[in-house]
Amino acid sequence: MAKRAVVLLSGGLDSTTVLFWAQRRGYRPTALIVDYGQRHKREIKAARRVAKAAGAPWHEISLSLPWLRDNYLINTKKKLPHVSLARIGKNGIPPTYVPGRNTILLALGVSLADSIGAEAVIYGANALDYSDYPDCRPDFISAFSRAARLGTRQGAEQGRIRVLAPLSRLDKSAIVKLGRKLKAPLHITWSCYEGDARPCGCCDSCQLRAKGFAAAGVADPAQ
Amino acid sequence: MAKRAVVLLSGGLDSTTVLFWAQRRGYRPTALIVDYGQRHKREIKAARRVAKAAGAPWHEISLSLPWLRDNYLINTKKKLPHVSLARIGKNGIPPTYVPGRNTILLALGVSLADSIGAEAVIYGANALDYSDYPDCRPDFISAFSRAARLGTRQGAEQGRIRVLAPLSRLDKSAIVKLGRKLKAPLHITWSCYEGDARPCGCCDSCQLRAKGFAAAGVADPAQ
Repeated sequence: MAKRAVVLLSGGLDSTTVLFWAQRRGYRPTALIVDYGQRHKREIKAARRVAKAAGAPWHEISLSLPWLRDNYLINTKKKLPHVSLARIGKNGIPPTYVPGRNTILLALGVSLADSIGAEAVIYGANALDYSDYPDCRPDFISAFSRAARLGTRQGAEQGRIRVLAPLSRLDKSAIVKLGRKLKAPLHITWSCYEGDARPCGCCDSCQLRAKGFAAAGVADPAQ
Repeated sequence: MAKRAVVLLSGGLDSTTVLFWAQRRGYRPTALIVDYGQRHKREIKAARRVAKAAGAPWHEISLSLPWLRDNYLINTKKKLPHVSLARIGKNGIPPTYVPGRNTILLALGVSLADSIGAEAVIYGANALDYSDYPDCRPDFISAFSRAARLGTRQGAEQGRIRVLAPLSRLDKSAIVKLGRKLKAPLHITWSCYEGDARPCGCCDSCQLRAKGFAAAGVADPAQ
């Protein structure tokens, strides 16, 4: 029987690639889609479409955390800061850092994994292009993985539950290439922080995505 | 200015004692009350009363996690298993273990702490009376604390955010004595897993509480 895994799925390029990576590696993944109040629902819709395309079951949950209300990724009244590509994530923690977000998402993933007997929680953290997000760094990931093993039934009884971040050492261009190789449906992914009809092209996420496709030498099929 | 802290507050004996411990230690605590679908709302009400009694601000949030629906602490259609006092938490992971619950609560606490500039997340984990709950064990707590430091703005920029579990090495009788010494309002706490008019007296939590008060040689003021 296939090993089970939980994949944190936001509907963007990275998590979509991770979902298909998990399947290729022989996992039977359950996707976890979390609405934590992000600026728009487009990425939730994209995540559902991706899970369907992968034939993966998914859970969708909502979180309303009052202390995050003023965060750039949540409060639509705040205009997202635009910085030049060269400075994204290389100049201290960016304003689009959501305090504790990945910690919460991983904790929810661990709870789901421990409930369904999955042995891995997999997410699309990316330490190269987001080098200043503390919750994407390899040392955070391994510390959280250790906590997950120690703090769960799966871990305590069988020593097997861990957090994997297979994209951790890849840049966006390598992720685009991997996603294409895995035949991940990149055309239905949504990376833009804004929720307009088309990706804005200006936010950190759009710029990094564009750079990745350009460097991979392919057109973005979602454009 | 007082150091800030987040205290996970369930409204029971342990977390109430922890809240008053934090104040005595010079912290200015914000309480975090989480409704994760527990069998009844009595403990949420108790938690609010305790926060008010401490003069502590609090956040209250709700979580609905479909994969926990069948847990003993959540599904009121399931009859709580009653085991003898001597066997509570000493015989493998108890059925009242909620997969990943403390991991999630701590992650939420870390998010709040990182948002308000608090340097500690404090909770009432208790490794003696609940020795088989993996998410109460000291090695889990220190692993999670390390992840919290590595994965947050506070931790990354100032190296100061940590998880404290001051009751970790105390038994219930020592907790009762500590709570009384701190003048914590133990009379308004609620520990019972059931939500009847009076504590059931039979569930694990009631039995451990009764043992603690008996061993401390004082009457339970909530009875």
